[in-house]
Amino acid sequence: MIAVIKNGTTTAQIQHLVDWLKHMDLDVHISAGKEVTILGLIGDTSRVDMELLGSLEIVESVKRVSEPFKQANRKFHPNDTVITVGDAKIGGGHFGMIAGPCSVENEEQIIGVALAVKASGANILRGGAFKPRTSPYAFQGLKDEGIHLLLKAKEASGLPIITEIMNISALDLFADVDIIQVGARNMQNFDLLKELGKTKKPILLKRGLANTLQELLMSAEYIMSEGNENVILCERGIRTFETSTRNTLDLSAVSVLHELSHLPVVVDPSHATGKSRLVTPMACAAAAAGADGIMVEVHNNPACALCDGAQSLTPAQYDVLCDKVRKIREAIR
Amino acid sequence: MIAVIKNGTTTAQIQHLVDWLKHMDLDVHISAGKEVTILGLIGDTSRVDMELLGSLEIVESVKRVSEPFKQANRKFHPNDTVITVGDAKIGGGHFGMIAGPCSVENEEQIIGVALAVKASGANILRGGAFKPRTSPYAFQGLKDEGIHLLLKAKEASGLPIITEIMNISALDLFADVDIIQVGARNMQNFDLLKELGKTKKPILLKRGLANTLQELLMSAEYIMSEGNENVILCERGIRTFETSTRNTLDLSAVSVLHELSHLPVVVDPSHATGKSRLVTPMACAAAAAGADGIMVEVHNNPACALCDGAQSLTPAQYDVLCDKVRKIREAIR
Amino acid sequence: MIAVIKNGTTTAQIQHLVDWLKHMDLDVHISAGKEVTILGLIGDTSRVDMELLGSLEIVESVKRVSEPFKQANRKFHPNDTVITVGDAKIGGGHFGMIAGPCSVENEEQIIGVALAVKASGANILRGGAFKPRTSPYAFQGLKDEGIHLLLKAKEASGLPIITEIMNISALDLFADVDIIQVGARNMQNFDLLKELGKTKKPILLKRGLANTLQELLMSAEYIMSEGNENVILCERGIRTFETSTRNTLDLSAVSVLHELSHLPVVVDPSHATGKSRLVTPMACAAAAAGADGIMVEVHNNPACALCDGAQSLTPAQYDVLCDKVRKIREAIR
Amino acid sequence: MIAVIKNGTTTAQIQHLVDWLKHMDLDVHISAGKEVTILGLIGDTSRVDMELLGSLEIVESVKRVSEPFKQANRKFHPNDTVITVGDAKIGGGHFGMIAGPCSVENEEQIIGVALAVKASGANILRGGAFKPRTSPYAFQGLKDEGIHLLLKAKEASGLPIITEIMNISALDLFADVDIIQVGARNMQNFDLLKELGKTKKPILLKRGLANTLQELLMSAEYIMSEGNENVILCERGIRTFETSTRNTLDLSAVSVLHELSHLPVVVDPSHATGKSRLVTPMACAAAAAGADGIMVEVHNNPACALCDGAQSLTPAQYDVLCDKVRKIREAIR
Repeated sequence: MIAVIKNGTTTAQIQHLVDWLKHMDLDVHISAGKEVTILGLIGDTSRVDMELLGSLEIVESVKRVSEPFKQANRKFHPNDTVITVGDAKIGGGHFGMIAGPCSVENEEQIIGVALAVKASGANILRGGAFKPRTSPYAFQGLKDEGIHLLLKAKEASGLPIITEIMNISALDLFADVDIIQVGARNMQNFDLLKELGKTKKPILLKRGLANTLQELLMSAEYIMSEGNENVILCERGIRTFETSTRNTLDLSAVSVLHELSHLPVVVDPSHATGKSRLVTPMACAAAAAGADGIMVEVHNNPACALCDGAQSLTPAQYDVLCDKVRKIREAIR
Repeated sequence: MIAVIKNGTTTAQIQHLVDWLKHMDLDVHISAGKEVTILGLIGDTSRVDMELLGSLEIVESVKRVSEPFKQANRKFHPNDTVITVGDAKIGGGHFGMIAGPCSVENEEQIIGVALAVKASGANILRGGAFKPRTSPYAFQGLKDEGIHLLLKAKEASGLPIITEIMNISALDLFADVDIIQVGARNMQNFDLLKELGKTKKPILLKRGLANTLQELLMSAEYIMSEGNENVILCERGIRTFETSTRNTLDLSAVSVLHELSHLPVVVDPSHATGKSRLVTPMACAAAAAGADGIMVEVHNNPACALCDGAQSLTPAQYDVLCDKVRKIREAIR
Repeated sequence: MIAVIKNGTTTAQIQHLVDWLKHMDLDVHISAGKEVTILGLIGDTSRVDMELLGSLEIVESVKRVSEPFKQANRKFHPNDTVITVGDAKIGGGHFGMIAGPCSVENEEQIIGVALAVKASGANILRGGAFKPRTSPYAFQGLKDEGIHLLLKAKEASGLPIITEIMNISALDLFADVDIIQVGARNMQNFDLLKELGKTKKPILLKRGLANTLQELLMSAEYIMSEGNENVILCERGIRTFETSTRNTLDLSAVSVLHELSHLPVVVDPSHATGKSRLVTPMACAAAAAGADGIMVEVHNNPACALCDGAQSLTPAQYDVLCDKVRKIREAIR
Repeated sequence: MIAVIKNGTTTAQIQHLVDWLKHMDLDVHISAGKEVTILGLIGDTSRVDMELLGSLEIVESVKRVSEPFKQANRKFHPNDTVITVGDAKIGGGHFGMIAGPCSVENEEQIIGVALAVKASGANILRGGAFKPRTSPYAFQGLKDEGIHLLLKAKEASGLPIITEIMNISALDLFADVDIIQVGARNMQNFDLLKELGKTKKPILLKRGLANTLQELLMSAEYIMSEGNENVILCERGIRTFETSTRNTLDLSAVSVLHELSHLPVVVDPSHATGKSRLVTPMACAAAAAGADGIMVEVHNNPACALCDGAQSLTPAQYDVLCDKVRKIREAIR
């Protein structure tokens, strides 16, 4: 970490700051120039509050030289992490094809979708039981019953399952769930992250609507620092001024995260765009960008032809998507 | 709610959609034009999933005509809500001067600050016991001990206190806390909001980093729909591309929220700007914009002269702020 | 266009508004409901100032039903526009591989790069002569001399050329330039767009840093409404809060623009990311997303090994990119 | 400027970079640490391309220690710049009350508004003659005739006038205009800025929709570096995800700009919010935040009662605004 000291600062003031920093077990290199004095902080700077330091009257600005995350950091863990659930692997060249309905509705639906997406090439089944909804008046998911139905679909299809947790008090219900999802709105629910860090379950951590990639990695670090190294990162679109899509899918996140971290990176084009007709092109783009997996909403509701235009694909559309993604992965090999 | 149907949609398709909507207990007015057909949905549309409807193949776009929030809505509750804690009132012409240190550190500190800010005109004491931190390696607050010290300061100063909750399992510790704060990162932690809705405690709800004002009101609605009407809204800056301040304080939020809702609106210039020298001008601006209160960080640490430049004001600076804010409130009366 | 009238508006007020609208040659359908009254405006609403209408005291909100752009609109021009320059075509299944140095520096450089990128598969040569720079003290390009050198490279390589215009007074210099580029900062320099609309030259129009896709199409409309239909749209990243890349490349823009417009869509991953190691994955992603072309910075400066890490690729790296993009285009065919 | 060199870089590579930097007339201090090597660049770094440097393979990151603007910089010009036009002064404790209609429509209107706003306390008259419009089909202003009418109003009222330029070719028309406005969309139209820098006219430079404050100052620098020091900065709202206002007014910009620069800072609450009922509270907030002036839209059109709700205030509403702003300025003195 580097701190640039303001012009006109007295030697006594600088010494005061240096003492304070040394008190935190840091070595401090002082490089006094004509215009500015620069302090180089050596040691474990991950505990230094960069904002506090930067806001001191005598400090012009502060710059991190090393990243504040350790366990998620590729520098200290050069090899790709591979997450294994059932027969599926994600990361290190293995591709996760996660698919399933937005919400689990009933046994017929979830088993039907599970078998259909498996036939197309999915290796993990998704389905919402606890649904975070902006409005308290909207349907909040089947909850316990939803997880129960997902487990039936797991048994029927042989696919490992992933579903979202919203509250640590529900953890017992997730005993047979293969991957626990943390939604975008909970990315910085630090107490939840810490508790999930005490399990050994793979956690799929979604990027928050307006969070930087470094913040995403710091949230992964919350889980990992408690002992759980099985974290999958998920890009699902960020909030911008553009209104033609629900969010703006940030595909450069894939490369940036791969550079900074060894954790696998999955992309969710369904929530990012909010429009079914954009899902397949964005899934193709994610595969071409080097993602380790794609999470897509697929429904199977012959009684509700209306739903055809929603952000969910039909099984037939998903089949086309799988085929294209497979070819693209071969093309960039 | 209005749904615009795409050109070329068949009568049968429209009828299918109308049946589905009527199934949700809505009346549907069909207005067939040459270019487009418009459906007007009458009834309780707060349960309609606007995104789902908008994503249907035959729907061009959807528009809400009435707001999706009810209990927070000024239309159904024209008079300003006034929150009373101890001798302080917020809303309806009453102004909350909330001040105190970022983190509670020790008894001497918190009591010292409490007495100082009270002398300047503060009527509510703030202080962090549970601290949401981006890094798992950063100081997370004194927790239980912090609340214990805050209660001592409450007794010593006579000021009601506000502090942040991060996890519903800690609720018992907040029995004698006067206002419970929900931080920006938990604004859409819906399970936490629902549980807080079951208490009768005043809740100060901070706007999320990238949340719209409507989403803030929907989160207030989560609390209110469970029976707790004592909600204070708090603008604390949003995330933008600008880097010279930590966040961008959105002061038009004050007027917009007052128009849409009867709930009081407090502004936090300390977290919004992250720089102590911007706190007083932004506090003045907030008062001039019509805010119902200002929450400011004040520290009192003679041993740590270094902290003078942080986002916290000294008691002396806070005294100047109080004086200016008082004069501005008179000026706009 | 639909205008929702506020509850409590008198009949006289509504009639006043209706008269005003009819005065603009619009037909108005009034649909009076219990809660709201809705006005449907029929006719050429592209001249209606939506913001003005929406800000009227009696108007709750306004919604466009038809897009405000006409000549760029796919509804009125269902077939893809194909732009032809020299042997290259862009759009309608034809792919533009545009490559070249950020700035034209000297004859050897520009001819060297031209021959190298042609050998890899580029069909259009780019190179900056007039450079828009944030700082007045930075190098502003070789200007006239730069265009002169580009023309030499065109002759030597047989590749058509594209370069940026910053000021209409320089138009004469562009007589033999094949495609004129309008940069992101000039996307809403309406006077420049109008003048370019009076030429017949293909114009590559870059999306502004914080412009919506609809605004991009309205700027295309400025050019087209003056008679020049040869417009190529270019996505080059938008400004968000994320700092790990220079901008956030918005690849869903490709699909959205293809849906709304018949104009070809090219992607510039070099400026979007600002980092050479992200250029190839993002170029691949753009091709997979269905782009009609990719514009990439390539330099060839053996004397300046330092430049290897910049946003420009080396010819060797560009060769790999071309190969991958070719395979991906086949994969999604 | 500081460049942090990546771990693992060879001495030869570092030397290569140092030579290149010295070639640009910079002194380079090398500070080799165990983990990182830091280069301190001393000299005129305003010409160094920070992005290029930062993108080099061996460079971890780059940080400016001194600002890239000189003439706009308060460090080299500690006293506030005061702009004088007619009887009005802006900056250094003098307050500009700029008011007038969005567009000049006819003689009666512009003279009527001029006399009305003068009576309320305005000291500068605004009015649009050339109007930048998103759509080519929208009204583009009265142009020459608009400026002619403004000059009549100047004569009738004695108020100096400000109006927007969109194209340098129109400069002759602005001979008797007192302040030339550069709109948000032209903030980075560098060729226009340079030409305006060759005049001596005061220039009011509006911040672009998505431009940082540093970029605004660099655009001011473009004008000043050509010899024109009469620049007024204008905050008019930035683009964010929030949709309840047209833009988000960034009032901390006032303090930040005053810290960085000696130029006066004016706030435009009309364009920022797009809603007349937000204009007065935001004007009050701007005054409380320390702005040097406020630019407000006022219309006077008894024939068009419809316009009452637009972003423009009536003369009566403006009179109330002036009174409040006056009192607030006294309160913060």
